[in-house]
Amino acid sequence: MAKKTINVALFGSGFMGKAHSNAWLNVGKFFNTKFKPVMHTCASVVDAKDFAANWGWRNVTKDWKAVAADPEIDAVDICTPNNTHAPIALAALESGKHVACEKPLAATLDQAREMAKLAKRRTKQVTQVWFSYRGCPALGLARKFVEQGKIGQIYHVRAQYLQDWGGPSTPLLWRFKSKDAGSGAHGDLNAHIIDSCRFITGQEITEVTGSIAETFIKERAIPEEELGNIKGGKIGKKKKYGKSTVDDAVTFIGRLSDGGTASFESSRLSMGNKNANRIEINGEKGSLRWDFEDMNWLWYYNAQDDSQRAGWQKIMCTDAGSHPFVGHWWPDAHILGYEHGFVNLASVFLDRIAGKKKVEVPAADFNDAYQCQRVLEAALLSAKNRCPIKLSEVK
Amino acid sequence: MAKKTINVALFGSGFMGKAHSNAWLNVGKFFNTKFKPVMHTCASVVDAKDFAANWGWRNVTKDWKAVAADPEIDAVDICTPNNTHAPIALAALESGKHVACEKPLAATLDQAREMAKLAKRRTKQVTQVWFSYRGCPALGLARKFVEQGKIGQIYHVRAQYLQDWGGPSTPLLWRFKSKDAGSGAHGDLNAHIIDSCRFITGQEITEVTGSIAETFIKERAIPEEELGNIKGGKIGKKKKYGKSTVDDAVTFIGRLSDGGTASFESSRLSMGNKNANRIEINGEKGSLRWDFEDMNWLWYYNAQDDSQRAGWQKIMCTDAGSHPFVGHWWPDAHILGYEHGFVNLASVFLDRIAGKKKVEVPAADFNDAYQCQRVLEAALLSAKNRCPIKLSEVK
Amino acid sequence: MAKKTINVALFGSGFMGKAHSNAWLNVGKFFNTKFKPVMHTCASVVDAKDFAANWGWRNVTKDWKAVAADPEIDAVDICTPNNTHAPIALAALESGKHVACEKPLAATLDQAREMAKLAKRRTKQVTQVWFSYRGCPALGLARKFVEQGKIGQIYHVRAQYLQDWGGPSTPLLWRFKSKDAGSGAHGDLNAHIIDSCRFITGQEITEVTGSIAETFIKERAIPEEELGNIKGGKIGKKKKYGKSTVDDAVTFIGRLSDGGTASFESSRLSMGNKNANRIEINGEKGSLRWDFEDMNWLWYYNAQDDSQRAGWQKIMCTDAGSHPFVGHWWPDAHILGYEHGFVNLASVFLDRIAGKKKVEVPAADFNDAYQCQRVLEAALLSAKNRCPIKLSEVK
Amino acid sequence: MAKKTINVALFGSGFMGKAHSNAWLNVGKFFNTKFKPVMHTCASVVDAKDFAANWGWRNVTKDWKAVAADPEIDAVDICTPNNTHAPIALAALESGKHVACEKPLAATLDQAREMAKLAKRRTKQVTQVWFSYRGCPALGLARKFVEQGKIGQIYHVRAQYLQDWGGPSTPLLWRFKSKDAGSGAHGDLNAHIIDSCRFITGQEITEVTGSIAETFIKERAIPEEELGNIKGGKIGKKKKYGKSTVDDAVTFIGRLSDGGTASFESSRLSMGNKNANRIEINGEKGSLRWDFEDMNWLWYYNAQDDSQRAGWQKIMCTDAGSHPFVGHWWPDAHILGYEHGFVNLASVFLDRIAGKKKVEVPAADFNDAYQCQRVLEAALLSAKNRCPIKLSEVK
Repeated sequence: MAKKTINVALFGSGFMGKAHSNAWLNVGKFFNTKFKPVMHTCASVVDAKDFAANWGWRNVTKDWKAVAADPEIDAVDICTPNNTHAPIALAALESGKHVACEKPLAATLDQAREMAKLAKRRTKQVTQVWFSYRGCPALGLARKFVEQGKIGQIYHVRAQYLQDWGGPSTPLLWRFKSKDAGSGAHGDLNAHIIDSCRFITGQEITEVTGSIAETFIKERAIPEEELGNIKGGKIGKKKKYGKSTVDDAVTFIGRLSDGGTASFESSRLSMGNKNANRIEINGEKGSLRWDFEDMNWLWYYNAQDDSQRAGWQKIMCTDAGSHPFVGHWWPDAHILGYEHGFVNLASVFLDRIAGKKKVEVPAADFNDAYQCQRVLEAALLSAKNRCPIKLSEVK
Repeated sequence: MAKKTINVALFGSGFMGKAHSNAWLNVGKFFNTKFKPVMHTCASVVDAKDFAANWGWRNVTKDWKAVAADPEIDAVDICTPNNTHAPIALAALESGKHVACEKPLAATLDQAREMAKLAKRRTKQVTQVWFSYRGCPALGLARKFVEQGKIGQIYHVRAQYLQDWGGPSTPLLWRFKSKDAGSGAHGDLNAHIIDSCRFITGQEITEVTGSIAETFIKERAIPEEELGNIKGGKIGKKKKYGKSTVDDAVTFIGRLSDGGTASFESSRLSMGNKNANRIEINGEKGSLRWDFEDMNWLWYYNAQDDSQRAGWQKIMCTDAGSHPFVGHWWPDAHILGYEHGFVNLASVFLDRIAGKKKVEVPAADFNDAYQCQRVLEAALLSAKNRCPIKLSEVK
Repeated sequence: MAKKTINVALFGSGFMGKAHSNAWLNVGKFFNTKFKPVMHTCASVVDAKDFAANWGWRNVTKDWKAVAADPEIDAVDICTPNNTHAPIALAALESGKHVACEKPLAATLDQAREMAKLAKRRTKQVTQVWFSYRGCPALGLARKFVEQGKIGQIYHVRAQYLQDWGGPSTPLLWRFKSKDAGSGAHGDLNAHIIDSCRFITGQEITEVTGSIAETFIKERAIPEEELGNIKGGKIGKKKKYGKSTVDDAVTFIGRLSDGGTASFESSRLSMGNKNANRIEINGEKGSLRWDFEDMNWLWYYNAQDDSQRAGWQKIMCTDAGSHPFVGHWWPDAHILGYEHGFVNLASVFLDRIAGKKKVEVPAADFNDAYQCQRVLEAALLSAKNRCPIKLSEVK
Repeated sequence: MAKKTINVALFGSGFMGKAHSNAWLNVGKFFNTKFKPVMHTCASVVDAKDFAANWGWRNVTKDWKAVAADPEIDAVDICTPNNTHAPIALAALESGKHVACEKPLAATLDQAREMAKLAKRRTKQVTQVWFSYRGCPALGLARKFVEQGKIGQIYHVRAQYLQDWGGPSTPLLWRFKSKDAGSGAHGDLNAHIIDSCRFITGQEITEVTGSIAETFIKERAIPEEELGNIKGGKIGKKKKYGKSTVDDAVTFIGRLSDGGTASFESSRLSMGNKNANRIEINGEKGSLRWDFEDMNWLWYYNAQDDSQRAGWQKIMCTDAGSHPFVGHWWPDAHILGYEHGFVNLASVFLDRIAGKKKVEVPAADFNDAYQCQRVLEAALLSAKNRCPIKLSEVK
């Protein structure tokens, strides 16, 4: 008997389009999901013929509305610019499709709220947001340890997402323009660690007590290829500078629903930290520590070990029998990488569409992403108004 | 010709009395200072005869006032409870002595200010405060790297001092009583990392933008040996509980004088972190990272290395020719420990008394400790009043 | 213009068949090779229909001889049991095909020699052996550092490949039977680190000076599912035991062609080391260190750094512009995993078929694998005869 | 009541004289030993007046024979050149004294055997050899773990002692002259790791199966200050070179008494490894790993942990209640350093003199050091004769 298939449409063909295409191409090879994805259509405003051919998308189009309404399509996957997430997702939900969407959920909190509300009503459709680190076995194991009571009451969460590509010599890319990118490190990086905190602890962030957002590099060189488009711009030896209108770094502290303290910090100016997505959790019975730069390892401290032996334990999260997702890949101790997170979460999406109750780890849905966006908003408000912001004030 | 000597009097005979006695005993053996310390008198309110005999203090007394005024004494070293620092130090300064004092400088900001003021007027007397980590070669090297311009403009400082001995089963020791200890993790631990930040960067903390102070364990068991002293207390099977009146953890964020962001967090509830006095500094040209639990290593990232080679460099700070203090001890790569910090700083104290211009690293003086205390105060005010506090508001 | 394609036939459908299928599926997506592989035929003695369908092999057959002779096939990829490598590879070479083969090259040294000889004569055909760790960017970078003179004269190589799955409770799998597996840890693991040593240093191992081969667990439980096949065997509560006829661990020391010393150790009884493929190289000008368990990091020590700064540098080998293979995958600092090694080496195979002169790193060819097999043989001889063995004695 | 004292005489006043003086000065302050050491006399062939005054030795003399016979002296401590150990130790033993001696025990195996024999006969006198790493809490804990059965049958020991100060630019110091130093890295460094292996495992090394000793740097520049003493030598621009007559590196493999394999490697040419005294032990039930460069940490792997949690555990060996020696120093998690090993072992020496049955860890005695010297000899013989050497052949 042939497997059931579902037709997937991809919106977008950039870096994330590549990561998602890889996920759809490979998920069926490694995971024995009930539904097998068919790479049906790639919708992109740019010419995506070569991209689609390379990855095996059977069709390619610029008409996203037609795709969102196409009855042949079962599920859409959105990795277009942030301000287009809402119209695509809303249209696709309305036309009965399952929707997977890149983070952040939307360009504005209003949009995010609307998307979460609609998702809530469409009870038979699955929504998912690509907080891809949930697909890392180590992070899934961290969540399991909390669920199993290994950590106990959580006193502290300490999360950072530090990169270093945004130094003074980096030109004024679209990522430094507020109208294109929404925010800087905050939406790009803090979004991830807020989600990790919620995912692992199962708690909400209930208050941002203090926050600092800073743009250290106020002006950046306009890329040469853009100078022609700018009034007075000329391609020449002399550089022209333009304003950076996003944050380089945002740091804030706050509270968890069970009373613990939490700190979050993101930066693109943290030299030497390439992709340092780090989280440490301290609880009454134990602690956990993870850094994406060593993504296959989870550090665990059991405060109940006898004092002779007690110490941080470095767990290689590649045990096929014990660690999330791993059994689908290689034998024990064969290291996974960045893109496996996407493939793993694609399998969860397919499992949920198939109505499977027990998935490897819960992927983020639209509501999770909306909660995350509320925290981002609260942090910005706190930084701007120079006061604590309760999450209950941010709808 | 005999060496010149200076007569030292120690105030106090507890844990810190031991660490300081060790410093005075050994500094003359390892360092060729102009003045050799003589362990003249130990002043202690408890019976310190055995203590003094063990460490070789020639005299022992309970009459601290007499010692503070004794013309035979050249320098006093104070490691008594915090609320006695001010009277002893002020008396000793008035009577012309050099003064070394344990941190925090005083029990109140008013006292600290008065001490710093008097110290400033007594221009020929040396004051020092035992921020002992300044005596770690790795921290001194970190400061040198900043001075040499290896880090450039500082974007971020991220400092934590995390311990784990204060869980729910720890009884109501004096350290959990506000009247005895002043504060909890804040004064004990944040004091150190505030000093490290100032020491390495050479910058002031100019604002506390947000702050959280928390007492997670509200009640603790009264130690059995104290039950007899408590109304209704009885030694028996049933535990009696009393209120903890200090913070278990304080976390705050703020600004440095050159615009960088800084975060500080201390806790006694960070399971698995035994003495994790950590600091990370990110600047335009490079980064630094240190953790007291690996006190002999300094991590350095040079953002100007070519991209093929660039990476965090793990420097063992035990090179006799290149790293602060090391040449006085053992050959290269022979690890130093906790107490060496005290011996090293004792040598700086003696060097400064001898008028030496170029000391290995600048030890903290009363003014440094006063500035540190202002930051501690600002953090408490910010937590209490739930608003940012500029340091200029804290006199 | 359509891309040129080459038709690939896979021999085998086990664990390695999976790893190789993944490589052929993905190499064309990530690498812009001149020739695009077509997954033409899977040849397997077991029923491989589902396997082939899953991975997209267009044809499936049990008739390996027909495939080896099929003029439609341009290249064959062999991952069948070791004793079948030689007949398949020789037939395929004779019929003009390019040949990629799993390690070890052959079941016997005689076969390996014959294969290397034939490969040498077939100058227009490419041969490759899947020493997959050559495809790790960090190992490629290590080789580049040696080539660039960063290490200078090599004094020491220290290599280990340590696993821990072979404890007393592990049953008598085929891997513990000499007739099926050839050898134990030696052929499976030492093969890899011998190749790494040759790959990075560019030197030959010229002598095995001393060697120990040991079977610690002499008897192992016969797997229940096999008991029926064994004389007197019965499925029941009582375990039956059989002899393990391979080594659990082999350690040996020797010499490199430029005079350096080298040590090699492999074990399946090194508890806690899951896949610890480690190598450390010490030379006059610097040192290198790598462990597959942290495969994205290369540690480098520059002995010419000034003594204040000198320290092991932890290089994250994920810089798209500077590190081998990385530019074909994700942005900087997005971690790669185990299977990327295969995809990377598949691209080298395709590049060499296309006559490209400058490949990312040189993959192992039949001659490399034959040299490796000579070293393995020398180590066994040395252990058996209890004397040093010069490689010149092992033809 | 006054404490009992014992009068100690130190032989030698060099680097080790400093380390030992520090031990005798401080052991009484930190340890409550029954006998308190009195620093009675320093015997040295060079002028040691300043040295003795600095450290507080009450007498100083060049007449070592008189000291060895002096009835006032209870214990002698020998840190003179290796070829003088035997005469001093034998004389002191004959005159009834306790003897502590630097490693290696003697310049020749004959001397070592004689010393061990005499020590065996003098049953009421304590002998000790300063294998100082036995005084590191982490190494003591490793031994305890083996004793407790946490490791089970030992399969592998892997030990290295790697330094990097012996590069081509290092001049022809006495350490490179066979007549002065006996051997190079072998006696200096392999001695330590052989002892660590015996100390932790409680097993003997029963065979050296293969061994390589190498002098990479055949000639070294004669130090300028020595040129005047050399025939034809002249102080000038042109360097003169002399032959190095010791090994730079020795690596060997062998067997333990319970059948495990062991490898040992020492080098002065291992760039980046400053004092990398490393040992790893793999057993049926667990593994251990230690590196002196991180001397306060012991890594432990419990193979019986469940697979979800299993991982190397990083134990900070500074728990006052659980780890050897620590309770005598500072509160938990206050790092110890290099010289603490000597102070700790001095306390063991005093405890044994006082007849204490249960010491913190067993220090090495003359027999231990003799066994170690037999292994060193066997490794040299194996390297020279190019064959395995059974320890039973080396008397």
